Amino acid sequence: MTDTKKKTVLVIGGGSVGAIAALNLEFGGLATVTVVLRSNFKVVKENGYSIESCDHGSVKAWRPAFVRNEVPNIAAESLPPYDYIVLTTKNIPDVPPTISTLISPALPANNTHTTLVLIQNGLNIEKPIIQAYPHTPVLSGVSLIGSEETAPGTIVQDDRDRLLIGAFNNPNLDAETATSRAKEFVTIYGKGGKTEVSYSDNVAHDRWRKLVYNACLNPICAITGLDTGRIRLADGSVEGLVRPAMREIVAAAKANGVVLGEGVVDDMIEVDPLDLYLSPSMLADVRKANFIEFENLLGEPLREGKKVGVQMPTLEVLYHIARALQWRTKEGRGLVDIPEKRKH
Amino acid sequence: MTDTKKKTVLVIGGGSVGAIAALNLEFGGLATVTVVLRSNFKVVKENGYSIESCDHGSVKAWRPAFVRNEVPNIAAESLPPYDYIVLTTKNIPDVPPTISTLISPALPANNTHTTLVLIQNGLNIEKPIIQAYPHTPVLSGVSLIGSEETAPGTIVQDDRDRLLIGAFNNPNLDAETATSRAKEFVTIYGKGGKTEVSYSDNVAHDRWRKLVYNACLNPICAITGLDTGRIRLADGSVEGLVRPAMREIVAAAKANGVVLGEGVVDDMIEVDPLDLYLSPSMLADVRKANFIEFENLLGEPLREGKKVGVQMPTLEVLYHIARALQWRTKEGRGLVDIPEKRKH
Repeated sequence: MTDTKKKTVLVIGGGSVGAIAALNLEFGGLATVTVVLRSNFKVVKENGYSIESCDHGSVKAWRPAFVRNEVPNIAAESLPPYDYIVLTTKNIPDVPPTISTLISPALPANNTHTTLVLIQNGLNIEKPIIQAYPHTPVLSGVSLIGSEETAPGTIVQDDRDRLLIGAFNNPNLDAETATSRAKEFVTIYGKGGKTEVSYSDNVAHDRWRKLVYNACLNPICAITGLDTGRIRLADGSVEGLVRPAMREIVAAAKANGVVLGEGVVDDMIEVDPLDLYLSPSMLADVRKANFIEFENLLGEPLREGKKVGVQMPTLEVLYHIARALQWRTKEGRGLVDIPEKRKH
Repeated sequence: MTDTKKKTVLVIGGGSVGAIAALNLEFGGLATVTVVLRSNFKVVKENGYSIESCDHGSVKAWRPAFVRNEVPNIAAESLPPYDYIVLTTKNIPDVPPTISTLISPALPANNTHTTLVLIQNGLNIEKPIIQAYPHTPVLSGVSLIGSEETAPGTIVQDDRDRLLIGAFNNPNLDAETATSRAKEFVTIYGKGGKTEVSYSDNVAHDRWRKLVYNACLNPICAITGLDTGRIRLADGSVEGLVRPAMREIVAAAKANGVVLGEGVVDDMIEVDPLDLYLSPSMLADVRKANFIEFENLLGEPLREGKKVGVQMPTLEVLYHIARALQWRTKEGRGLVDIPEKRKH
């Protein structure tokens, strides 16, 4: 059934990032990919993906080797363990299930074989996983892709897939193992030549650098309801909100041993072209009344900065507002009970 | 036409606060009231107000002595100057017209006769007016009424009208003049006995005290989309946002010579009953895509606090977010131009 020379890869989350990842992995010819889908399962199962990509051109009715609507239970199905499990879902630790719970059925007991690849944003996302599966190699994927699922199974990728892969520090494993898995994954992922994937030996730097955008612009846009173009036009928002927040992240990174380049604040303010009026993920999520990834993107860098004595007053307020927005979404979904309204 | 023993009062703004003010003023028998209306002019002109009031009971088809749809131009109409002009509109200095411009046609040149009464929230609202009309007595009205215009001309007042009247400091006038006008206005307003109006000799205290609610809970609710009940239930919002913001206002007040009572923070957190889920004014305005009074309620206390060296990191962030929300409303109303979206 499966080509035994190929690596088996389970991609959990087949949205705009996961679909392109699956495509790159299969396109290189070194992997057999199983994709776990939810909302778009039926469409992709029946018709495949329809992809318009700046990297791959027009790809119609494309199906990965296997498509599933839930995470496979390898013990119950007597499946061999996957070589790689790639996570491309949102990572929202404050709303169940956690990533650790989600992947559990697909991991063998006392796993050392399967390597996890977290193509997810934020800080400390590996920690609960390493705690739950101490000998599992866990890789960091920092993606700069611009892609969108415009309809179920329809992916428009209009900005190149640039992916930085490195090994998260795992005190239970020798560094060599994790590093060699990272380099192998880069080879498998990049083999097709249609993507910019590279190995990084500085995961902390990759992640803190992206947080300059994700802990600042992302929640500020979500809270104000303004996209990354409009926030640059709105009276005083860049100088009053965006820049102070970004400076706090740069300071927190530095206090944690990560020196970001001099121009990183301006680079991140201008990374989205003003006149494309792009909505970062949290703004898109707030508009759809979806949960936001505020704990990993905002809460963790805030806590890491404060832990080493960095003053972060702007992020502190943004964090608590984001938390209130998350509570509002929870209430909207019936996840919190509140006292009945009094008739006065 | 006008009973010459009565004082003439022009009430600008005949919504939920102005209608009850007009009713109290006429009910006492000491004033002839002209109300300037906008959106509800036609309804009130034709049918009068329909008022359900905890103070006045059910009042049907009630009309003040005169109803107008714009501020009278007393020079052009050869009208005698009003004894009092009461402002009950929103006060939004960042969106024209300013209050000074609005009242201009109703004030005589080099006015000393007409007393202005600002039943409006926030700090320093008298300053642009005294600058424009240096010898005009200006009174502060701090209102704690609970009333709502549920349909044009239909007012539901379900919480008592409590009004504190005092004289703003005006360096161009002797204190006696302003004080005697304030006391006279209290007499006129309270004569009917259906309201709790009183004279206050500490306007700064009255205003800073109300800011503990209005500079903090009000914008926090507007920004998070949560009412004053829900904000008390939402994970960490009171301790993470509301209380730190309120403490900053208490500190700014103190540094400006106004000592607020020990329990003011808790009092203001709990002033709205949790299970009524009341929406403060800025939240109601954001929901209707109306402009918010953020400059007088939030910007001025922030500036006054910082001027005397008080650290106000929470209010600083809330201020800039509120300013971004205001910009969004301006864009929605076509008041700002932005570059066209690029076709990519």
